[in-house]
Amino acid sequence: MDEFDVIHRYFAPLTRGDVASFGLTDDAAAIPSRAGFAHVITTDAIVQGVHFLEDETPANIAHRLCGSNLSDLAAMGAAPVGFTLAAAWKKGTDARFIEQFAAGLGEWVDAFKFPLLGGDTVVTTGPMTFSLTAIGEVEDGRALTRGGAKPGDTVYVTGTIGDGALGLRAAKGELPDLSKAHVSFLSERFRRPQPRVDAGRALVGRATACIDISDGLVQDLGHICSASGTALRIDARCVPLSDAARSAIDSDPVLIDTILTGGDDYELAFTAHGDLPAADVPLTAIGEVAAGSGGVTVTGFDGEPMTFAHGGFNHFTGT
Amino acid sequence: MDEFDVIHRYFAPLTRGDVASFGLTDDAAAIPSRAGFAHVITTDAIVQGVHFLEDETPANIAHRLCGSNLSDLAAMGAAPVGFTLAAAWKKGTDARFIEQFAAGLGEWVDAFKFPLLGGDTVVTTGPMTFSLTAIGEVEDGRALTRGGAKPGDTVYVTGTIGDGALGLRAAKGELPDLSKAHVSFLSERFRRPQPRVDAGRALVGRATACIDISDGLVQDLGHICSASGTALRIDARCVPLSDAARSAIDSDPVLIDTILTGGDDYELAFTAHGDLPAADVPLTAIGEVAAGSGGVTVTGFDGEPMTFAHGGFNHFTGT
Repeated sequence: MDEFDVIHRYFAPLTRGDVASFGLTDDAAAIPSRAGFAHVITTDAIVQGVHFLEDETPANIAHRLCGSNLSDLAAMGAAPVGFTLAAAWKKGTDARFIEQFAAGLGEWVDAFKFPLLGGDTVVTTGPMTFSLTAIGEVEDGRALTRGGAKPGDTVYVTGTIGDGALGLRAAKGELPDLSKAHVSFLSERFRRPQPRVDAGRALVGRATACIDISDGLVQDLGHICSASGTALRIDARCVPLSDAARSAIDSDPVLIDTILTGGDDYELAFTAHGDLPAADVPLTAIGEVAAGSGGVTVTGFDGEPMTFAHGGFNHFTGT
Repeated sequence: MDEFDVIHRYFAPLTRGDVASFGLTDDAAAIPSRAGFAHVITTDAIVQGVHFLEDETPANIAHRLCGSNLSDLAAMGAAPVGFTLAAAWKKGTDARFIEQFAAGLGEWVDAFKFPLLGGDTVVTTGPMTFSLTAIGEVEDGRALTRGGAKPGDTVYVTGTIGDGALGLRAAKGELPDLSKAHVSFLSERFRRPQPRVDAGRALVGRATACIDISDGLVQDLGHICSASGTALRIDARCVPLSDAARSAIDSDPVLIDTILTGGDDYELAFTAHGDLPAADVPLTAIGEVAAGSGGVTVTGFDGEPMTFAHGGFNHFTGT
């Protein structure tokens, strides 16, 4: 099967007939502009063995890659429009793998009317590498950014925090004290994160700053501090936890570090002042924005300031 | 040096201060829409040892990747707007390599006011892999496609054909009969292709179908046949050649196959009826569009139909 067969058989159906894609038969896609809107563009790359487990299923690899890009759109308050994919398959990858990979993307295509619009497929002798560019749209000049937090704003998060990082450890068998159900719940949260697209849209015009939690809550809040020129004070006792995460720290309290700095949650962290919009996910206040350049300070369960050995995932060195 | 340092030091300057990029400090870029225009999106991926020589300079790798994406924009008649980059560096890649890679991109950033708008940088244990997503804009509904060729149209190409594929062979030392100057000219054409952006813009509303020559002239014209539902008749004697390419086939006439099917020219092939626009590159008629499903037929130097052993580069199998 050559490149053209692969595209025709597995990827062209993911366009769902969207005319912007030209059926993947042209040099590029052409996405009509909508008056009063900006196109939001984000690109993420993942490498086998670094960003996903060697034995991860192709559907989960694709689902997570696409989900994390949708999460970046959500963080900007953008509605999904479509995406392009660059896939470097390992030499000898069979058609079944590619079919299941495409099926993993297909779940998002359907969930958000988020068609594939183009891309490239190549072969590598090394670990498989995928990159995805997501395109969204948001009202012109109203994209949520990391830069608008103001002293006096409240800091919120969507959903529950720490499930992604605990889920990676659970999937690797590193949390033996957890019940099977909790291991399964956390693994699923790591493997198939749910981007908060609807919440992001609802926050346009309401949040003063927003980011998605990919590197870790503390590190990502640090990005809001830097971009906004403010400090943030967080109370670990307010950070919303799943039952599984709570069970994990009951067994091993030091796991609160993993929860607060571990990354891969793909929840939104945002700052706002005044009423919150209705959302399809719980919004929980976890702290406040303060003046100054002190970065993120976290009060722990004992009421004392916490310090962290590890500030978050470093994508460049992979540590 | 971690991911954030790399982005701050080498990539943030490539935004040239474009506000759409948020200085690479946010989750995504936000590109304002222009009334009456569509955004054109294309993604290409390259792998070390497959799409570029192991010992290629970082500036040339980057220059060629970005140039080939600009060529896809040109083929759609789109003006460059900006790009995102996903880079998977080999573990241990030094800062100097990254700096020179960024410098290679910078040439296009300046040539076309084509700022970097976002991306991702990761590390791989395998061959380096890069993917670039180029964003352009074209008048709404007027993007050039492969699909509009009509019987009676003339087939044209920009510039000279075959220099890319001959250049790869020259760079590998496979064309020993060529003069040093010709080897150098052809290698440069392979390593640093010039996307025909201005010609593509000039062809909007004039060309009936258009494609850029990346897979090989014959194969890419075949894509126009498929998309347009026509046949094409090409005369090899009309295909414009550089002095270096002419010298190569003087030494070894079989190289005409390489010229016609070898790829990597990044010239435009297009069909048109009536007057041509002024362009900054020669436009040469090489054949005509015919009715029917016979694909591309090529008349050779001897006046007889040519057959080809190899229909073009297969990006999926890398053969």
